[in-house]
Amino acid sequence: MLSLTVRRMASSHRVAVLLAGSGVYDGSEIHEASAALVALSRHNAQISCFAPDKPQLHAINHCAGAPHEENRNVLQESARIARGKVTDLAQLKVEDFDALLVPGGFGAAKNLSDWALKGPDCTVDPTVAQTITQFHAAKKPLAFCCIAPHLAAKLIPGCTVTVGSADSQGGKWPYAEVAGAIEKLGCKHVEKTVAETCVDEENKIVTTPAFMYEGAFHEIHDGVSKMVEDLLKLC
Amino acid sequence: MLSLTVRRMASSHRVAVLLAGSGVYDGSEIHEASAALVALSRHNAQISCFAPDKPQLHAINHCAGAPHEENRNVLQESARIARGKVTDLAQLKVEDFDALLVPGGFGAAKNLSDWALKGPDCTVDPTVAQTITQFHAAKKPLAFCCIAPHLAAKLIPGCTVTVGSADSQGGKWPYAEVAGAIEKLGCKHVEKTVAETCVDEENKIVTTPAFMYEGAFHEIHDGVSKMVEDLLKLC
Repeated sequence: MLSLTVRRMASSHRVAVLLAGSGVYDGSEIHEASAALVALSRHNAQISCFAPDKPQLHAINHCAGAPHEENRNVLQESARIARGKVTDLAQLKVEDFDALLVPGGFGAAKNLSDWALKGPDCTVDPTVAQTITQFHAAKKPLAFCCIAPHLAAKLIPGCTVTVGSADSQGGKWPYAEVAGAIEKLGCKHVEKTVAETCVDEENKIVTTPAFMYEGAFHEIHDGVSKMVEDLLKLC
Repeated sequence: MLSLTVRRMASSHRVAVLLAGSGVYDGSEIHEASAALVALSRHNAQISCFAPDKPQLHAINHCAGAPHEENRNVLQESARIARGKVTDLAQLKVEDFDALLVPGGFGAAKNLSDWALKGPDCTVDPTVAQTITQFHAAKKPLAFCCIAPHLAAKLIPGCTVTVGSADSQGGKWPYAEVAGAIEKLGCKHVEKTVAETCVDEENKIVTTPAFMYEGAFHEIHDGVSKMVEDLLKLC
C-alpha cells in the first residue's frame, strides 16, 4: 500500500493552464476555467496558471456587451480566476510541465490570437505560439475547449479537433460556423456533443465543445472534466 | 413515469443568486459562484443572478493585491460570472423565488456590507438587507458560504452558522478570527470542515466554509455543492 501511495504522489502530473483574462466576452470563460481547475485538483495534478502580460484587445462591459472606456491587462484579470497565483507566460519553461490546457472564452480568440477579428487569417500571439509548438514538439499533451481549439488548428497542421456542431440546430450551437472556418486551416473537424471529447492520439490533443453549445452550467462542467481526464491519460 | 417526470419539472426550484462582483479580493469568489451555479443547474433549479448596481468598494489588481486606479461597478463585474444574465438587485421580488444563495469572496464583505472595514460594527447595504430579511420572513431558505454568513449573523439574530474553524491550524484556516467576530453579533457559530455544511433548520439557513479554508479547488467545489443540495432540501 505504501509503495502504491508513493508512486501515485510521484506521478502527480504538472499541468500548465493558459488563461486569457476573466470573463466570457473578453477573457477566459470563467466556468470552463473553474471546471478545469476543479478536475485537475481532483486528479491530484500540480496546477500552474499562466497568462500573457499585455493589454487585452479590449475590456467588455458584460451587461451592455460594449467596450469599457478603460482597457485591462490580461495577466492581472487572469489573476481573478487564479486567485492571485498566475505567472507571465513568457516565463513558462516547457520542460517543467507534463501538459498544457487552454480554456475557451472570447479571450482565447482576442488576446491569445486575433481570430475574433480575422478568423482563419489570424495571427497567434508569438509567446502563445511558441509555448504550444514546444509542448507539441516535446510530445506533451494539449487540451483546448470551446473556441480555443482554433489555436491547435492554426499551429499544428493536420491535427484533429472539435468545436462541436457545424449546424446551429436552431440556435443550440450559436457559433456553428467556426467548424467550417477552422477546417480552412487544414485540420480535420469532428462533430461532438457537449458531453464528449475529441482525442487526437497522434498529436496528443484533446478538445471539447464546452460553451460553443448553449448548455446548462453542469453540462459544460462535465464536458470540461472529461477533457481533463483524457488529457491526463495522455501524459 | 410520465406523471413523475411532470411533477419533477413542476417542482423545479427558483433560486436567486446574489453576486458581489467577480474575483476573490473585491468581488464574488469565482470558483464558489461557479460551483453554486453548476450544482443548481445539475439539480434542475431555475437560476436568476442579481447584484447591486453601484460602485465596488474598490477594484483590486489580483496580481499585486493593491487597488487599481479605476473603480468598477458591482453589477457589471458580476455579469462576468453570470455570462451577461444578471439583474439589478433592486428589481428582485421575493415572491418570485423559492430560495436565495450568496457566494463568498471579499466582495460579500466589501460590496454587500462593510464588514471588511468594520467587522461586527458593519452596515449591510440596504437593498441586500431588505432582500435577505424578506426571504427569511417568508420562511424561504438561504445559503451563504465563505465570509458571506456574516450577513445572516448580522440580519437574523440568534441564527446558527459556520465559517469553518476558530483555530488557524497552522494556516489552513487563514481567517480563523472571523468565527469569534461573528459570535459578537449574537449568532451561534458551529465549527465545520470544508466538506461539511451547517444547517439551521429553524431559520432555514445553510452555510459552508468554502475558501475560508486553504483547500484545493475540488474540495471547495464539493462543499459548495453540498450546500446547494441542503438548500434545495429546505425548499
